[in-house]
Amino acid sequence: MNKKIAIIGAGPSGMAQLRAFESAERNGHDIPEIVCFEKQDDWGGQWNYTWMTGLDSNGEPVHSSMYRNLWSNGPKEALEFADYTFDEHFGQPISSYPPREVLWDYINGRVRNSNVRKYVRFNTVVRWVEFDENTKLFTVTSNDLAGGETVVEQFDDVIVSTGHFSFPQLPSFEGLETFPGLLSHAHDFRGAEGLRDQNVLLIGSSYSAEDIGIQAHKMGARSVTLSYRTAPMGLDWPDGMEELPIVERFEGSTAYFSDGSVREFDAVILCTGYLHKYPFLPAELSLDSPNSVYPDGLYKGVVWQQNPHLFYLGAQDQWFTFNMFDAQAWFVRDVIMGKVALPSVDVRQADIDAWRERYNGIPTAADEVRFQADYIRDLIVATDYPMFDLDRVVDIFLAWKKDKVSNILGYRDGSYQSVMTGTIAVQHHTPWIEEFDDSLERYLSEPAATPS
Amino acid sequence: MNKKIAIIGAGPSGMAQLRAFESAERNGHDIPEIVCFEKQDDWGGQWNYTWMTGLDSNGEPVHSSMYRNLWSNGPKEALEFADYTFDEHFGQPISSYPPREVLWDYINGRVRNSNVRKYVRFNTVVRWVEFDENTKLFTVTSNDLAGGETVVEQFDDVIVSTGHFSFPQLPSFEGLETFPGLLSHAHDFRGAEGLRDQNVLLIGSSYSAEDIGIQAHKMGARSVTLSYRTAPMGLDWPDGMEELPIVERFEGSTAYFSDGSVREFDAVILCTGYLHKYPFLPAELSLDSPNSVYPDGLYKGVVWQQNPHLFYLGAQDQWFTFNMFDAQAWFVRDVIMGKVALPSVDVRQADIDAWRERYNGIPTAADEVRFQADYIRDLIVATDYPMFDLDRVVDIFLAWKKDKVSNILGYRDGSYQSVMTGTIAVQHHTPWIEEFDDSLERYLSEPAATPS
Ligand SMILES: Cc1cc2nc3c(=O)[nH]c(=O)nc-3n(C[C@H](O)[C@H](O)[C@H](O)COP(=O)(O)OP(=O)(O)OC[C@H]3O[C@@H](n4cnc5c(N)ncnc54)[C@H](O)[C@@H]3O)c2cc1C
Ligand SMILES: Cc1cc2nc3c(=O)[nH]c(=O)nc-3n(C[C@H](O)[C@H](O)[C@H](O)COP(=O)(O)OP(=O)(O)OC[C@H]3O[C@@H](n4cnc5c(N)ncnc54)[C@H](O)[C@@H]3O)c2cc1C
Ligand SMILES: NC(=O)c1ccc[n+]([C@@H]2O[C@H](COP(=O)([O-])OP(=O)(O)OC[C@H]3O[C@@H](n4cnc5c(N)ncnc54)[C@H](OP(=O)(O)O)[C@@H]3O)[C@@H](O)[C@H]2O)c1
Ligand SMILES: NC(=O)c1ccc[n+]([C@@H]2O[C@H](COP(=O)([O-])OP(=O)(O)OC[C@H]3O[C@@H](n4cnc5c(N)ncnc54)[C@H](OP(=O)(O)O)[C@@H]3O)[C@@H](O)[C@H]2O)c1
Repeated sequence: MNKKIAIIGAGPSGMAQLRAFESAERNGHDIPEIVCFEKQDDWGGQWNYTWMTGLDSNGEPVHSSMYRNLWSNGPKEALEFADYTFDEHFGQPISSYPPREVLWDYINGRVRNSNVRKYVRFNTVVRWVEFDENTKLFTVTSNDLAGGETVVEQFDDVIVSTGHFSFPQLPSFEGLETFPGLLSHAHDFRGAEGLRDQNVLLIGSSYSAEDIGIQAHKMGARSVTLSYRTAPMGLDWPDGMEELPIVERFEGSTAYFSDGSVREFDAVILCTGYLHKYPFLPAELSLDSPNSVYPDGLYKGVVWQQNPHLFYLGAQDQWFTFNMFDAQAWFVRDVIMGKVALPSVDVRQADIDAWRERYNGIPTAADEVRFQADYIRDLIVATDYPMFDLDRVVDIFLAWKKDKVSNILGYRDGSYQSVMTGTIAVQHHTPWIEEFDDSLERYLSEPAATPS
Repeated sequence: MNKKIAIIGAGPSGMAQLRAFESAERNGHDIPEIVCFEKQDDWGGQWNYTWMTGLDSNGEPVHSSMYRNLWSNGPKEALEFADYTFDEHFGQPISSYPPREVLWDYINGRVRNSNVRKYVRFNTVVRWVEFDENTKLFTVTSNDLAGGETVVEQFDDVIVSTGHFSFPQLPSFEGLETFPGLLSHAHDFRGAEGLRDQNVLLIGSSYSAEDIGIQAHKMGARSVTLSYRTAPMGLDWPDGMEELPIVERFEGSTAYFSDGSVREFDAVILCTGYLHKYPFLPAELSLDSPNSVYPDGLYKGVVWQQNPHLFYLGAQDQWFTFNMFDAQAWFVRDVIMGKVALPSVDVRQADIDAWRERYNGIPTAADEVRFQADYIRDLIVATDYPMFDLDRVVDIFLAWKKDKVSNILGYRDGSYQSVMTGTIAVQHHTPWIEEFDDSLERYLSEPAATPS
């Protein structure tokens, strides 16, 4: 086929898109010409760890929000690829909550031996994208960060897979500018060792607050206070951790909370979420949404309604991750290759409206997980991506939520069964709370025990 | 005149450019249509302090590298505007090294009561600039960060005044990714209170290393180690501060230096300078230079040789600051308004070559100051900016350098005489090392003493 397409970003979503096209080619189909732009020097997106914070060595916004000691916060059985299992990659059962480096290895493993790496222009940032109504082509302007060259090219379709957990959302609090200690956003958190013996305040009540909180506790913080705006996480926190309602103001190192509590802190980390931000897109092509499982304006969660030659991957809030990106990438591939026909603008709008209506009525977190499973199923049935037992993955998520409630410091020692292979995860040789070496080497070093 | 010009950035340089046009208009000249784009919500550039680090609340790179407790590191008598003196602004003599907020007030004072603020579009970032060889016009694409709108406009001339101390230069050191404590670049340093009782390593041997070093010492750091690549600063450091040659590698919190020294650190701050970075410009319009008093490719240090409708302000390494930006802005104004005729490309090149040759032969720092004074003089004679005694300012810089050598913790208590008004600076009521309140209010609160 003589289409030329651009994929912006080679994180798990962009890599899924490359894999999707590769799979079509292996099956004898003619695929478009592909250019994948990646501003970092390797692929893996968030999973490509860096010690840098703020701006990177090229002066670009640092992409990854991950920290040295990050481990998966959900069971790996919920994110497993349907076409490349953990068993296939590791050749042995591993535990359910692998550290960052192990998951990077898994994502990388699926594509490293294929020929898709040749499509990726590393160290190349997309600066600006325009659409020409007359030619119906996109002009993509990119910059080679190593050589400094600016390249301008035309594309038929553009796939945005740049993620949405990289641009911090920074609310301001009265007097925050007078806080004299360490003050940053979760995006720039790289490890809690420096918080030993400190009184730490985390603002926010979602995954970042929860996990940075227990990291700080594990590394010996004197106290960890979690401040929520809407609702407390309500977990059974260990001694030294507590939840308070929202901070109202700061005076130097003193924080005043809405319930009248007053505390002194050495460090404040804003765990207040991220912006959907696409600095390379004009406003009319740019998704503008809160973090949501069904952002408005995207047909099937991926096709930009106002211009169906533009696609977004992974733009949803994420219960499901890697296998959802696959479902999306296979669908986008088939739209681009004409194997899935796009309905009219009105039919697409009706579909968006129906999903949005259901979305607006979601009563509980458990229903949100089911919603996302249904969304993924809807995509998979339209393509040749291997269907898997989404209901059982929903059960895994619900069990995981219970595990956290019963033991926030111990939930990562739990084990789940793969819905792809039936393999039951082994138990890691060392309980998470006692494990201070997060490397792949250490993780695979000792035989793991079968779960008790 | 029916030209339309864009000024990118409303820091001291952009504000000087606005002031230059305003001054021409006051003198009865017809000035071009002006749009000044400023991504922050106020003007002042580096002097517009923010508690944020890395990315700001709009997801844009944080611009300012200044910290809460920053005071001028050179005497104010060296940066005084020739057309708006400190006496005129404050109505009373002040000391020679004012804190940040006081200098912001001074810069702001010159323009706040004029009508130039109307030209500035705040919260508006320039995303992309292109030049069309056929129409000879620039297309500037900007984004309203509040409303999100993308605006595309044409301009005859573009003036880049976005500064070059905002994108950190980040060298890497073996094992740096294993350092477990606070690790950042000077760009993200906001105050040293959090470094109390810590062992702090600063890499670099220029202004940031020097000043963050004495800030950390003042705030009670247990030790401050300064690591140089080329040469030590060689100042008479107080107990608790020392200079070592370059770090060769890290193993966790241990640093190994090239002379065999080994030290443990709690915090590392890279004071390794900044990149010239213009993410909104294609490579062929983008200045690419180390930090230098005479970057290549700029006629008279301001006119882009390859396209003389593009200008850069303040692109030099800076001994002189505010009054140099004025000299440049007045010159650029007169080129744009046709009052200064641009010579042919060859004559311009010969002029650049001559300055670059002299630049390459500069033997000492003192000669570099003289070089910059000569450069400024060369600009001022071409315009109606008030000439001032540049040789006496050179003497001020040389005396200041001696002050630092004799007393690095006390040099900010020294006093200089204005070359504009003859006023002798008073002594601040409190020695810098004992002053922990850096506010304008405090600074102006008590009568200052005349220098002893
Ligand atoms: C702190 C944190 C922890 C997480 N932990 C987990 C977990 O445990 N399990 C899990 O399943 N998920 C986790 N996630 C969710 C995560 O979003 C996904 O796992 C996954 O990384 C998303 O993939 P993506 O490709 O959509 O985006 P990303 O991984 O964000 O990748 C986007 C890519 O686009 C590139 N890019 C961006 N802008 C440009 C540009 N202008 N030009 C060129 N390239 C560009 C980036 O460099 C990057 O490589 C976590 C997320 C965060 C923030
Ligand atoms: C830590 C530090 C301390 C310093 N201390 C002193 C001192 O004591 N005395 C002294 O004389 N000088 C000092 N300086 C030097 C400083 O460079 C100058 O004083 C002055 O601020 C430079 O002015 P400028 O306008 O050229 O650039 P800046 O002050 O950097 O201003 C550039 C402006 O451009 C805006 N901008 C950038 N990109 C865009 C975009 N894409 N779209 C729209 N707007 C944009 C920014 O928001 C900013 O307002 C210091 C510099 C640093 C880094
Ligand atoms: N593997 C891991 O261990 C790990 C660790 C961290 C993060 N992650 C991943 O990273 C992604 C992002 O998670 P996240 O927690 O950073 O973001 P998030 O899930 O979007 O949550 C944002 C949080 O910020 C709060 N917030 C926003 N504005 C606020 C304000 N003005 N004041 C107070 N609170 C405010 C929200 O509170 P409201 O509820 O009041 O809106 C919410 O609690 C997720 O995909 C997550 O799985 C994974
Ligand atoms: N008002 C204040 O108090 C204050 C405070 C801080 C900064 N400032 C201003 O900020 C501006 C920037 O100053 P700056 O000091 O940040 O930058 P700078 O003057 O450009 O100096 C950069 C320093 O980084 C070092 N460096 C670069 N790469 C290195 C590497 N790979 N390894 C080790 N060292 C390396 C350089 O060493 P080499 O000599 O070996 O090249 C140099 O010492 C100046 O205008 C300054 O006046 C003012």
